[in-house]
Amino acid sequence: MAVIVQKYGGSSVADTERVMAVARRVVDTARQGHQVVVVVSAQGKTTDQLIAKAKEISKNPPKRELDMLLATGEQASIALLAMAIDSLGQPVISLTGPQGGILTDTQHTKARIRMVNGDRIREELQKGQVVIVAGFQGLTPNNDIATLGRGGSDTTAVAVAAALDADVCEIYTDVDGVYSADPRLVPAARKLKKIDYGEMLELAFQGAKVLQPRSVEVAAVYGVAIHVRSSFSYEEGTMVREVDSVEREITVTGVASDENCAKVTLAGIPSDVHTLCHIFTSLAQVGINVDMIVQAAASKGTTHLSFTVTREDLDETLSTIARIKGEEAWEVFADDNVAKVSIVGAGMMTNPGVAAKMFEALTEENIPVFVVSTSEIKVSCLVPRDRHVDAVRACHRKFELDAVK
Amino acid sequence: MAVIVQKYGGSSVADTERVMAVARRVVDTARQGHQVVVVVSAQGKTTDQLIAKAKEISKNPPKRELDMLLATGEQASIALLAMAIDSLGQPVISLTGPQGGILTDTQHTKARIRMVNGDRIREELQKGQVVIVAGFQGLTPNNDIATLGRGGSDTTAVAVAAALDADVCEIYTDVDGVYSADPRLVPAARKLKKIDYGEMLELAFQGAKVLQPRSVEVAAVYGVAIHVRSSFSYEEGTMVREVDSVEREITVTGVASDENCAKVTLAGIPSDVHTLCHIFTSLAQVGINVDMIVQAAASKGTTHLSFTVTREDLDETLSTIARIKGEEAWEVFADDNVAKVSIVGAGMMTNPGVAAKMFEALTEENIPVFVVSTSEIKVSCLVPRDRHVDAVRACHRKFELDAVK
Repeated sequence: MAVIVQKYGGSSVADTERVMAVARRVVDTARQGHQVVVVVSAQGKTTDQLIAKAKEISKNPPKRELDMLLATGEQASIALLAMAIDSLGQPVISLTGPQGGILTDTQHTKARIRMVNGDRIREELQKGQVVIVAGFQGLTPNNDIATLGRGGSDTTAVAVAAALDADVCEIYTDVDGVYSADPRLVPAARKLKKIDYGEMLELAFQGAKVLQPRSVEVAAVYGVAIHVRSSFSYEEGTMVREVDSVEREITVTGVASDENCAKVTLAGIPSDVHTLCHIFTSLAQVGINVDMIVQAAASKGTTHLSFTVTREDLDETLSTIARIKGEEAWEVFADDNVAKVSIVGAGMMTNPGVAAKMFEALTEENIPVFVVSTSEIKVSCLVPRDRHVDAVRACHRKFELDAVK
Repeated sequence: MAVIVQKYGGSSVADTERVMAVARRVVDTARQGHQVVVVVSAQGKTTDQLIAKAKEISKNPPKRELDMLLATGEQASIALLAMAIDSLGQPVISLTGPQGGILTDTQHTKARIRMVNGDRIREELQKGQVVIVAGFQGLTPNNDIATLGRGGSDTTAVAVAAALDADVCEIYTDVDGVYSADPRLVPAARKLKKIDYGEMLELAFQGAKVLQPRSVEVAAVYGVAIHVRSSFSYEEGTMVREVDSVEREITVTGVASDENCAKVTLAGIPSDVHTLCHIFTSLAQVGINVDMIVQAAASKGTTHLSFTVTREDLDETLSTIARIKGEEAWEVFADDNVAKVSIVGAGMMTNPGVAAKMFEALTEENIPVFVVSTSEIKVSCLVPRDRHVDAVRACHRKFELDAVK
């Protein structure tokens, strides 16, 4: 008997028919003798509709109250899924994030899970019940409901799997696995049988949209095996787990792109560490994640600083910067017509010349590169948004990813 | 500075415009220097829509899961109202029933409030905030969400008012007070300036639809003054409070009718107390409230028993009776083409002949009476549903209620 955590996204439970299909799948698994915990997102476009409703009332609703509103989306879907599973004769109970022991920090709309108290889930499992837990939400130390931000349900599932020491965390989605590139952009893209946490993390961060990055981080820390698979078929998907170094033969595993980025450039700012530190600390305090950062020396004592943020965060970034700038003489430019293209692969760190090969691929297609950033297992380039598909295809071709076995 | 609890029903917060109107009213009250707690129901038809959604998935959804689903309705409206109040510059916080310390028993979909722990509400009030509490819901001893059943938000408001020792509990509704009869049925009906708890209780039970009966019971026990008034005007409504006996001059205060009833007749059952007790205990165990009961001796050792239940409870009543009946020889008849008409008045108990006058009014209109039940302050008659409006008008006329000052 295994402990299996299954996570179903919003599109998997979008309507009554799909809720019933998920219910049948869950009951199948339970009847194979496994203990099953199901983590589920809000139905279809519910979250977007709730946000629209909030914006009708207030342009800038308090984040705590927005969380109160958004949390109703998952609460409705856990109840409906529980009813569907019950109607198939399988004992079941639904738990909200707070009831499921999902404890978060107080950063509303972007909260992070601090710990999972699995007592209630274990107790309900021991009664022979399937346990459904609301994804995307948890309880703050103030006894308030917080949401984890977009894609947070993946993180809930992995954190629950870690707390229960589950055998596997199955993430059901509308694609059948992780690909060497987005198949909608690159028809020759291949499904990967397995992928390392680090590679998956870079692919996810770079916009592969299959798994939420934070969920991969948590999986890596606790060694949770994630099985990414389709909710529409019983085919094997992609296993995300620790891959032994002897298995690593491929230099580049995949290509990812992310259109949700905007570039901010601060021209002529003082080059002292104090100013830079102040800027990034201030952005962090309002919860803005800065991604790529480049700095180039300008005239004496000043520097040009460029960095990227998500497009949603651009307004708040600019107003935060304006506050810091005050009467200072430097200039601020913003550009959200950009996209990030990345090549990812754990084998990369031992293979020189990978970055050069990527630039070559882009140059051959006359695609300008605004910003570059690299890590041990990825190279990212910021390119014009209207060229990012060309860039992904060029890289996929250059690294012969369709030929990978 | 007074402590004021205001309760707004679903129609008062049905859309964005009305939510804003309620927000302005709340902020007005807060700016007069009062501490304000707002209890709010789900928006418009939300609860009905959620029930329909549940029924799509399962004909007989588990009640715990139905509560999980229904509770999202109020949770959405408290969040939206909080956003609206915040947008007017007034500090505010919303609390779900469980967060607001509304503690219930475990009878899902029909839970009763066992106590209100007002600590968190008081704490948030002391920070100078308006506090919004979700009506209709609370926390069971199992840490589950339970709903109080239809109209439960009134009870939440009164229970919160009792816990906070509030100066008044204002119930905002789409009518401007309690009338001597439903003005839609009786154009000559008069608004009452004040009414006794007992009279209000009978009027509410008999279907006046203005206040939930349980809320009046709680108000009577804790001496909470209820002000029933319109959310569309600033006019005074009706005060529900202890009325001194010296103030009681009027025999009949009002006429009420209730279409939500069904009659069940058990013909030829054994007349021993054991059988009767078994029947009513079994119905109580599945949470069915029996209202009017009459028993008439039939042939030797058997009896005819008739009683009424709500129409929703009719199916479950019949299946419960069928289980008890087993192979017994008695017969079961059901009739849901009935309605109950009642005259109510605290002055009634000292005035003989009131019931006789009611029968006279009905006889003059050729309205048959199936079942009669009386209490110290009311007389109820079960009549054919298609005659109930005639019956209400006849009684209203007979007791000269439009002439009451």
